[in-house]
Amino acid sequence: MAANRPLHDLQHVEPVAANGLLHRRAFLAGGGALAAAFTGYRLSETAAAQQLADEPWSRKAGLRVEEYGMPSAYEKHVVRTLSNPQAQPRTQHGRTPHHLLHGTITPNGLHFVISHSGNPDVDPSRHRLVIHGLVRRPLVFTLDTLARYPMVSRVAFLECGGNSGLLFSSDPLQANIQAIHGLVSCSEWTGVLLSTLLEETGIDPQAKWVVAEGADSLALHRSVPISKALDDAMIALYQNGERLMPGNGYPMRLFLPGWEGNMNVKYLRRLKLTDQPSLGFYEARTYAPILPGGKAYQFYFLQEVKSFITHPSPGMRMGGPGFYEISGVAYSGNGRIAKVMVSADGGRTWAQAALQEPALPKAFTRFRLPWRWDGQPVVLQSRAWDEGGNAQPTRAEIIARRGQTAKPVTNPMAFPSQHYNGPSSWAVDASGEVRNAYA
Amino acid sequence: MAANRPLHDLQHVEPVAANGLLHRRAFLAGGGALAAAFTGYRLSETAAAQQLADEPWSRKAGLRVEEYGMPSAYEKHVVRTLSNPQAQPRTQHGRTPHHLLHGTITPNGLHFVISHSGNPDVDPSRHRLVIHGLVRRPLVFTLDTLARYPMVSRVAFLECGGNSGLLFSSDPLQANIQAIHGLVSCSEWTGVLLSTLLEETGIDPQAKWVVAEGADSLALHRSVPISKALDDAMIALYQNGERLMPGNGYPMRLFLPGWEGNMNVKYLRRLKLTDQPSLGFYEARTYAPILPGGKAYQFYFLQEVKSFITHPSPGMRMGGPGFYEISGVAYSGNGRIAKVMVSADGGRTWAQAALQEPALPKAFTRFRLPWRWDGQPVVLQSRAWDEGGNAQPTRAEIIARRGQTAKPVTNPMAFPSQHYNGPSSWAVDASGEVRNAYA
Repeated sequence: MAANRPLHDLQHVEPVAANGLLHRRAFLAGGGALAAAFTGYRLSETAAAQQLADEPWSRKAGLRVEEYGMPSAYEKHVVRTLSNPQAQPRTQHGRTPHHLLHGTITPNGLHFVISHSGNPDVDPSRHRLVIHGLVRRPLVFTLDTLARYPMVSRVAFLECGGNSGLLFSSDPLQANIQAIHGLVSCSEWTGVLLSTLLEETGIDPQAKWVVAEGADSLALHRSVPISKALDDAMIALYQNGERLMPGNGYPMRLFLPGWEGNMNVKYLRRLKLTDQPSLGFYEARTYAPILPGGKAYQFYFLQEVKSFITHPSPGMRMGGPGFYEISGVAYSGNGRIAKVMVSADGGRTWAQAALQEPALPKAFTRFRLPWRWDGQPVVLQSRAWDEGGNAQPTRAEIIARRGQTAKPVTNPMAFPSQHYNGPSSWAVDASGEVRNAYA
Repeated sequence: MAANRPLHDLQHVEPVAANGLLHRRAFLAGGGALAAAFTGYRLSETAAAQQLADEPWSRKAGLRVEEYGMPSAYEKHVVRTLSNPQAQPRTQHGRTPHHLLHGTITPNGLHFVISHSGNPDVDPSRHRLVIHGLVRRPLVFTLDTLARYPMVSRVAFLECGGNSGLLFSSDPLQANIQAIHGLVSCSEWTGVLLSTLLEETGIDPQAKWVVAEGADSLALHRSVPISKALDDAMIALYQNGERLMPGNGYPMRLFLPGWEGNMNVKYLRRLKLTDQPSLGFYEARTYAPILPGGKAYQFYFLQEVKSFITHPSPGMRMGGPGFYEISGVAYSGNGRIAKVMVSADGGRTWAQAALQEPALPKAFTRFRLPWRWDGQPVVLQSRAWDEGGNAQPTRAEIIARRGQTAKPVTNPMAFPSQHYNGPSSWAVDASGEVRNAYA
């Protein structure tokens, strides 16, 4: 169907794939397709007027404008879920509620957080960033001195290597997308390119790695290849316009677009150029699980192409048969999203989703597809391709390479847990309930 | 200078315009330009190690990860300024602190707000949107029914018609950019195109206007030409991913990309299609000031091309001579920003700023230019062009058409106060203090 062809009659809302998936442009061309598609909200002019009877909030002055605005009290359920709400001395996870969000930007209050020893309360006036080791000139930077350097802004996702680890389970666990996919978020990050600072320090030709260390009580550190440091690595200072959130590394973090979250060291205080990786705790243990053949899955940094449907998704209940928009997010550490396909029959037939422009590299791209649900059980899936031609593998392909867990996973750090980028399958039953499934 | 030409020596950081403005790509090509440009942060390897002595926050467990994250306590000054902090029964303004932000997205807590009767505490489960009047089928929508329609996301600025009204004053008032330009912000908005809903209702050929009405206690209403309603008008439901903030129209608002803020009716409950505008209070009075010739400045909806420098800006003090990045935002209700020029001598000579990609239509575009300040007094200005070839007028051109106020303006709604889109001039004196000036 041509993109600019008018859609003047019902034939254009005929399915293009099984179980009611419609053409991605079915509703864009006007001409009555929608009037034929949606029903049940019609009323008379008299009834319309009755809808406008003043509610209590229309009969009195409203609330104060606040210095720093917060969501409505009616949205108090839109929060991160916490793995360790008592902040006991172990890792705390806060997961993003993607099923309650829309668009591509994650608001700062809901960006995912993993803090291995809590969020240090850093005094920005005392914080320093030191670059030393295999450099020509060791340098120290304050927030004020960094503010004088050239800055860049980019929208980019950030994802924990362990995100979606529940899908390694041999049985499909019943959890919503906040539990399954809540360790990825997307923001506009602004800061100074690390290459700019390394141009100032100079680089000893022996330098192959940059060991980044945080000011948290663990001094969490990871090794970054010098090539990434000189490519698009950033010292991030701002997140969606304002200073970084405490859980996201205030007052500065290393930001490595498209690379494993843990490497994006928060509370960054040191970059030491070295000729070898540090083999610190997170590098050698947590983010180096053992593969089925016995080798460590180590130094695998890229968050590969991935997608998941957010609307509908597990835990939701459909409001009866009829028209819906299937919507989700796709992203790739390799670059831009080129294509997303959606299936409503567990992967046998597919329809191409519309991508919200602009599709930015290493950022969330929202995809959407109109769907007429007939009330019968279906299985929804999405599959994304990036501009490098990389596609999401099937779950079977991942399990063959990486193994799976035979028991339900309660500890998301358990093996295998890292870098799952296969499909998610959401089963809708005849009652409209949506559940996690394997298909 | 070619974009890809290496910058290997000092000549490439020679000024391209008066008072130290450098080429916009001076720092992008590497090769030592920076090492020659920045000084004063160098230290020995021993001194580097001393910088890394643990601070108190590195010696104990950090703070709890919260369900909804908030900025660090050290950022408590980064708030909106309020015109009516006691929420007395008149208009409340909350202004965005652009001098403390960076990038292009305004975080939701800091988006500007104007509430004429406070923020109504709308119960989203009871809220209704009715579309009636000159339509074929009056329809009513709940949040749940709207959720089934095709959605769109777009990053767009929103600006009060009265933003920058202080610059109509005959004398340059001493205020920072939060006071001068704080009534504009930029977010990612997600919702349903109004054209989609009007396709469902059908449109009577007599309909020329859409009167939009809010559920606030004033029932604030404005008239929108049907052509805009069918172009890019949106029923916005989400702001930077989460539900609209109460001050920005929760649970739904009319969003008219590039058009006067007041028309983007919040708490939207009614769209009535009519053959004439409503001539309501805000349409006929506040946003219809009298021009010097006696005619009303009415039905002028577009927020035209504009820019202002955020760093440095009034109230800041420069940290001594040397290199800085001049940075600001540009935007146009007509479409994309095509070019921004910066002057450091009050408009006599100009250098072209770098534009942060992607430059999206009707959205903030961040511009940046490297600058070597020699410590002498200068006057900084920016001037933007949009893709339609429209440029910011001079202040003299605006005053000739629109008048000015002979006394300092304390009430920003006073005449003339609307749609100022001339330049801002920031004077830097030898002490480094930055002040608002006319040049």
